[in-house]
Amino acid sequence: MTIFHFLDLLGTAAFAISGALFAMNKKMDPFGVFIIAFVTAVGGGTLRDMLIDRSPVAWMGDLTYVYVIFIAVILAIILRKKISYLSKSLFLFDTIGLGIFTIIGTEIGVQSNLHPIISVSLGMLTATFGGVIRDTLSNEVPLIFHKEIYATACIIGSVTYLLLNELNIDRNMIHILTTLMVIVVRLIVVKFKLKLPTFYS
Amino acid sequence: MTIFHFLDLLGTAAFAISGALFAMNKKMDPFGVFIIAFVTAVGGGTLRDMLIDRSPVAWMGDLTYVYVIFIAVILAIILRKKISYLSKSLFLFDTIGLGIFTIIGTEIGVQSNLHPIISVSLGMLTATFGGVIRDTLSNEVPLIFHKEIYATACIIGSVTYLLLNELNIDRNMIHILTTLMVIVVRLIVVKFKLKLPTFYS
Amino acid sequence: MTIFHFLDLLGTAAFAISGALFAMNKKMDPFGVFIIAFVTAVGGGTLRDMLIDRSPVAWMGDLTYVYVIFIAVILAIILRKKISYLSKSLFLFDTIGLGIFTIIGTEIGVQSNLHPIISVSLGMLTATFGGVIRDTLSNEVPLIFHKEIYATACIIGSVTYLLLNELNIDRNMIHILTTLMVIVVRLIVVKFKLKLPTFYS
Repeated sequence: MTIFHFLDLLGTAAFAISGALFAMNKKMDPFGVFIIAFVTAVGGGTLRDMLIDRSPVAWMGDLTYVYVIFIAVILAIILRKKISYLSKSLFLFDTIGLGIFTIIGTEIGVQSNLHPIISVSLGMLTATFGGVIRDTLSNEVPLIFHKEIYATACIIGSVTYLLLNELNIDRNMIHILTTLMVIVVRLIVVKFKLKLPTFYS
Repeated sequence: MTIFHFLDLLGTAAFAISGALFAMNKKMDPFGVFIIAFVTAVGGGTLRDMLIDRSPVAWMGDLTYVYVIFIAVILAIILRKKISYLSKSLFLFDTIGLGIFTIIGTEIGVQSNLHPIISVSLGMLTATFGGVIRDTLSNEVPLIFHKEIYATACIIGSVTYLLLNELNIDRNMIHILTTLMVIVVRLIVVKFKLKLPTFYS
Repeated sequence: MTIFHFLDLLGTAAFAISGALFAMNKKMDPFGVFIIAFVTAVGGGTLRDMLIDRSPVAWMGDLTYVYVIFIAVILAIILRKKISYLSKSLFLFDTIGLGIFTIIGTEIGVQSNLHPIISVSLGMLTATFGGVIRDTLSNEVPLIFHKEIYATACIIGSVTYLLLNELNIDRNMIHILTTLMVIVVRLIVVKFKLKLPTFYS
């Protein structure tokens, strides 16, 4: 297993846990918890694969994703009392997923010979769309549209990936560095409550 | 026409009526009623076809679906006073559609040589996603996430289909038996108000 | 550049501006404004391309769309005070996009040798689905389901296109005439507050 594939599964697990915690916050039944965890984890990658006509869609071609999500949901359910400070845990797992999926999406764009702008879009979309579906299904305005700099962290990490990709650096190193970059940017943003400038007076 | 195709059209009609009743409950105009009926009826199958890259999408390749939906909507509009106990009718048609589409989706998964777990997912997704779109467009949290055992009925029927499929049983018989199974499970669940155990205290 | 391609970009700009105004009305941050503008502008065409398996999806294969949206959003932000009568501007740009995208979608259906009914559906879907996504993401019931005759204008324009297409008329002329038809029908409908007859007492 490559680091790339390992990261993909780790991001899947992180988003599945984030989705499960979110659904438990909403008092959904066990099945609802699993479904929300599932769409949060695979939603972004599925849209990405449908857009670039990559067939079969990732989780259909490799059942490992399904197993990882299943185990992650069970863990989230069992440990839900230990992690009683739910919103912080949700934030943490969401951020890890965000970092990993941004780089996965960008790399798939590069491998498919897409224009850098499209590759960055694919990275961002892979990372954020699962959360958008989760929020939309739960009848909330997706976080991405009104909360702190979120997608911006993806763009910064994605562009960094493209730049490092031009240099002669070890592939695994690039994956890890740029993933960490997204995570760190997001942590800093939230820590210091940074916001994009708005233009409403 | 095979029983399989007949069932598919019957499920389409059932979901179209369910969608139309739902939209009339919301006092939508005639066009809104038709569109909601349409997405309820074809939404699940369309997502399924896009996911497994089946082209063209079912209702684009065979106009019979469109005609069936059109007639079903007209009928629902004409008979809306006769079926004044709206919520019960909505429930009934929704359940019939659920049973049929579960088996259709599962069979398409099997025919595409997909893993049994993916086939079951396709069955459930074909059966439930139209309703998810209907609810999301109407700004409600989809039924599937918070109401009684719904998708669970699909899973039971779908797994039964896979088991019977291994035996040497007449194809039409399998279709009818497993479809009925989903319907009966759902009726029992609602009749006796069965719920999945939850883990909230 | 053909008139067809020019119209496509014009429709994209109109919907991007409409989406940006909508998002600014909701006080979204600059990134949210861009994303809502983007999905409003490309949402309908993207769904259309995924449904008929047209690959790559329009905006991925031709970056001009992305640039046009970017410029349109910048313009909408800069001019937001000039166009302080926001709802009227939103309506105007939305209507222009509606007219153009209806004809684009219909023509792509015809070029793909799809049945006239499916071509009309594609036209309507191309024109309306971006707005449906915009509204759904913003947690509103899509306009199309409860407001004045909206999709009906698309259908009228789309059918007119199909009829003129049978005659020996200049292609560019057909595009412009039928696009204007959708726009005029919508303006008349709103001016005189026309509504579809409803059947609720």
